[in-house]
Amino acid sequence: MLIQVGYEIAFQLPQPAPMLLMLYLHPTRELTTRQPDRLLLTPSVPVQEYYDSFGNRCGRIVAPAGQMSFRNQALVEDCGLPDLQAPYATQAEVQDLPSDVLIYLLPSRYCEVDSELKDLAWSLFGASPPGWPRVQAICNYVHNHIRFDYLQARANRTALEAYRERVGVCRDFMHLAITFCRNCNIPARYCTGYLGDIGVPPSPDPMDFSAWFEAYLGGQWYAFDARNNIPRIGRVLMGRGRDAADVALTTTFGVSELASFRVWADEVVGTPY
Amino acid sequence: MLIQVGYEIAFQLPQPAPMLLMLYLHPTRELTTRQPDRLLLTPSVPVQEYYDSFGNRCGRIVAPAGQMSFRNQALVEDCGLPDLQAPYATQAEVQDLPSDVLIYLLPSRYCEVDSELKDLAWSLFGASPPGWPRVQAICNYVHNHIRFDYLQARANRTALEAYRERVGVCRDFMHLAITFCRNCNIPARYCTGYLGDIGVPPSPDPMDFSAWFEAYLGGQWYAFDARNNIPRIGRVLMGRGRDAADVALTTTFGVSELASFRVWADEVVGTPY
Amino acid sequence: MLIQVGYEIAFQLPQPAPMLLMLYLHPTRELTTRQPDRLLLTPSVPVQEYYDSFGNRCGRIVAPAGQMSFRNQALVEDCGLPDLQAPYATQAEVQDLPSDVLIYLLPSRYCEVDSELKDLAWSLFGASPPGWPRVQAICNYVHNHIRFDYLQARANRTALEAYRERVGVCRDFMHLAITFCRNCNIPARYCTGYLGDIGVPPSPDPMDFSAWFEAYLGGQWYAFDARNNIPRIGRVLMGRGRDAADVALTTTFGVSELASFRVWADEVVGTPY
Amino acid sequence: MLIQVGYEIAFQLPQPAPMLLMLYLHPTRELTTRQPDRLLLTPSVPVQEYYDSFGNRCGRIVAPAGQMSFRNQALVEDCGLPDLQAPYATQAEVQDLPSDVLIYLLPSRYCEVDSELKDLAWSLFGASPPGWPRVQAICNYVHNHIRFDYLQARANRTALEAYRERVGVCRDFMHLAITFCRNCNIPARYCTGYLGDIGVPPSPDPMDFSAWFEAYLGGQWYAFDARNNIPRIGRVLMGRGRDAADVALTTTFGVSELASFRVWADEVVGTPY
Repeated sequence: MLIQVGYEIAFQLPQPAPMLLMLYLHPTRELTTRQPDRLLLTPSVPVQEYYDSFGNRCGRIVAPAGQMSFRNQALVEDCGLPDLQAPYATQAEVQDLPSDVLIYLLPSRYCEVDSELKDLAWSLFGASPPGWPRVQAICNYVHNHIRFDYLQARANRTALEAYRERVGVCRDFMHLAITFCRNCNIPARYCTGYLGDIGVPPSPDPMDFSAWFEAYLGGQWYAFDARNNIPRIGRVLMGRGRDAADVALTTTFGVSELASFRVWADEVVGTPY
Repeated sequence: MLIQVGYEIAFQLPQPAPMLLMLYLHPTRELTTRQPDRLLLTPSVPVQEYYDSFGNRCGRIVAPAGQMSFRNQALVEDCGLPDLQAPYATQAEVQDLPSDVLIYLLPSRYCEVDSELKDLAWSLFGASPPGWPRVQAICNYVHNHIRFDYLQARANRTALEAYRERVGVCRDFMHLAITFCRNCNIPARYCTGYLGDIGVPPSPDPMDFSAWFEAYLGGQWYAFDARNNIPRIGRVLMGRGRDAADVALTTTFGVSELASFRVWADEVVGTPY
Repeated sequence: MLIQVGYEIAFQLPQPAPMLLMLYLHPTRELTTRQPDRLLLTPSVPVQEYYDSFGNRCGRIVAPAGQMSFRNQALVEDCGLPDLQAPYATQAEVQDLPSDVLIYLLPSRYCEVDSELKDLAWSLFGASPPGWPRVQAICNYVHNHIRFDYLQARANRTALEAYRERVGVCRDFMHLAITFCRNCNIPARYCTGYLGDIGVPPSPDPMDFSAWFEAYLGGQWYAFDARNNIPRIGRVLMGRGRDAADVALTTTFGVSELASFRVWADEVVGTPY
Repeated sequence: MLIQVGYEIAFQLPQPAPMLLMLYLHPTRELTTRQPDRLLLTPSVPVQEYYDSFGNRCGRIVAPAGQMSFRNQALVEDCGLPDLQAPYATQAEVQDLPSDVLIYLLPSRYCEVDSELKDLAWSLFGASPPGWPRVQAICNYVHNHIRFDYLQARANRTALEAYRERVGVCRDFMHLAITFCRNCNIPARYCTGYLGDIGVPPSPDPMDFSAWFEAYLGGQWYAFDARNNIPRIGRVLMGRGRDAADVALTTTFGVSELASFRVWADEVVGTPY
């Protein structure tokens, strides 16, 4: 299956400002990207690329005053299969985890592992079988506990706040699920990228980038999605980190206002190879 | 100058639990450590060492049920000079910072850069000259704003909470100062280690580990200390990270209760070399 | 397409010895691995896992005296398409490469970039159009220059030696091609993994692990294979590094003798999903 | 003790070329640098700084055609003590080493661990007591085996070649010693920096940058110097890596010719503080 992904985003800046960009496909997608993404900037300012400590591909620019817009499009191969299910995946003991994975057990900006959510996690999920079923129980709980509402998005809502407010967008679902996983000693990390409507009824909402998370079970990472809570086809990863603080699509060091925004991720049928 | 540093810490565990330890001198101290630290564990359980993504030396154990105690002592050389002062150190533009430093501009667990502290930072420090004087202005403000009180320590107090509660211990001073620095586009990171009373009147309080922070100015990192707010002699680094969440001395995955605690850092005078 | 990959390898050790293992699928394969690999050790000794600085999944054991065998099998999804071809992929100027990629321009154990191969590279490939065509010219040259001969494998043959001896196995082809690429200022890295006979006539030789390489063109990495020199289907990555010195499948700190060896990578047809 | 270190280096380039620079003090020196180094470039071209995967501070430029010169000077504090001696430092078993240290056991560009030096190492040093005495035995051997001769420097001489040719400069001594250490399962890494004549008779040779190495014993790294083979005062680190291939002071992607070269590292006596 071929999926065309892309976006057009524009900001308005009253004065020049440095920006960090995480607007690329994740390096793990490279070998299955038929038409690589090419970040187009208008006006055309030089981009300095780097990889952050999580392995994400990033860019840096100095945006001039006025409108700054970003456009990108790529054609990616996808096996077209729903998220891998491994219901018997076990949960490693903390002492058996690779050292590099331990950071995904610790508190982070939006995941207050060291809060009242800790006791709550054990009371809610302590009775679930450890491993895959426990992560699934967490997803079920979060899926039902939080009500999705686009109009109630807030850039700095934490897992604890999402738990209390019971409302949020996809990142809030993930932050709460990630926090519960870590509280159950299951490493969990945050993912952001494209997710179209392949295999599900089209959403009436305008498309946005999507968030999901990965849990470390049985020696590897698996994708979970506490918002949709069904296996989905066609996740196209852009960035991974401890939580959304590590993978903001753009970070402006100064004032910028979103002027326009469009994202797409569509199956391409019948393309001649 | 030679400084003897060390500690004795004991925990009580109702049942076996994995623990992460950051109870070592920082690798940057190795070449000036006359008697290296040797972590003694009672009971003697095997320690698996690793370095985390910030370069800190760490250990992992499975602590048995009962009392688990840690003892360490080292003799370190120190030039015996107060913290380096560089009042003319300039502040790099964000676009000129090395990419690896950018992470220290972003929000982290206890440093809510993406909060109301942002506007506050600019209103409080926007008029200070950029660079060293601005970091000093931040330290002055935080030093006066927060009241030190050991009895009001709280393991998960954030910078914003410290700002509102106006009370805390050294880590709270640092988290608030770090957050203000980042809000002023100055990279800042958290440090933990030993700091004795060398060159200052002895403190009446029992000695604890100390926190300070580093700000990136003019192409390198400099130590600052918003609690003491005077140049001090004899900081002996153990760990560095985004904030205290990255450098907890011990992390227990399970229940543990502090049973005893003693830390020392004393100048050794007249030692035969 | 589903591909079943696996191996059975056994060593004979006269006495116990520590071993490093790179016997896992690469983490980038995780989300498309239908039946994850499970490393089986006989005798069953504990494995401590870690990720190396290149992001490869690794294990450490202490192998007892006697026979030590490793068995693994996994079922991976693959889009079933040949290696991505991007004949118009351009070559970035060195000054525009991300900093993290620069290491793949430097000399490494088996790739003597700082040797007479440098002048040779420019004389052989300086007239080829830069970018993809130049990498292809390098592959063509190496493919024709070296004669494949299993019996002439040598664990420490370098690129320069392969150039002179004009004989080798797949790793020698790659080392020479990587060295030429680096000499033309094109970052190149070494890959190891499974490659079955999908889409090509079955090989009469017993199957072995395979080597290929990746070149950095137009902002991303692409797979090349100087030995086969045709786009192939079904590369299943295990490890990546500067050259074969970084991704040895096993490293024994002591004496071990290969006792048996079998690798497979076969398309699975008609599996019920 | 205060040490003034610095250099003036100039190259002649027939045409513009990108360059990598490792011309800074190592970050571990930051907190004891009284007057930080400031890299002056003539002509003044913009420098983009980064840290490499070993933690070294690096710069990137595009040098114009003509003369390109670099000047730097810093004032560093130093405890003024000779290299730390720890004759009872033990040698960890390979299985007890931190995972991040394992890379310093493997072959690298100039350190052919996987060569005939392996058997030689065991025959020469297998009878020495493991740990510190074995590293010292290696230094003694190399110190006597190789004759220092500036005129016989060669940029790509390997440890094996140095062993056979029995002549070289400081980097050759270190590469051979490092290779022997690794062959004895002792992690070893290469260091480059300043080393003046403090405490020893002044050298008649013009001063150059110096090389030394570090061996991992008893849980930490210690400095060794197979060329001088006596504890020295005042090593000021600039870069660390697997071997010299990782820490070239300058790397030009194109043609450059050394036009002038001067290095200094002198104790500053009687400076008003």
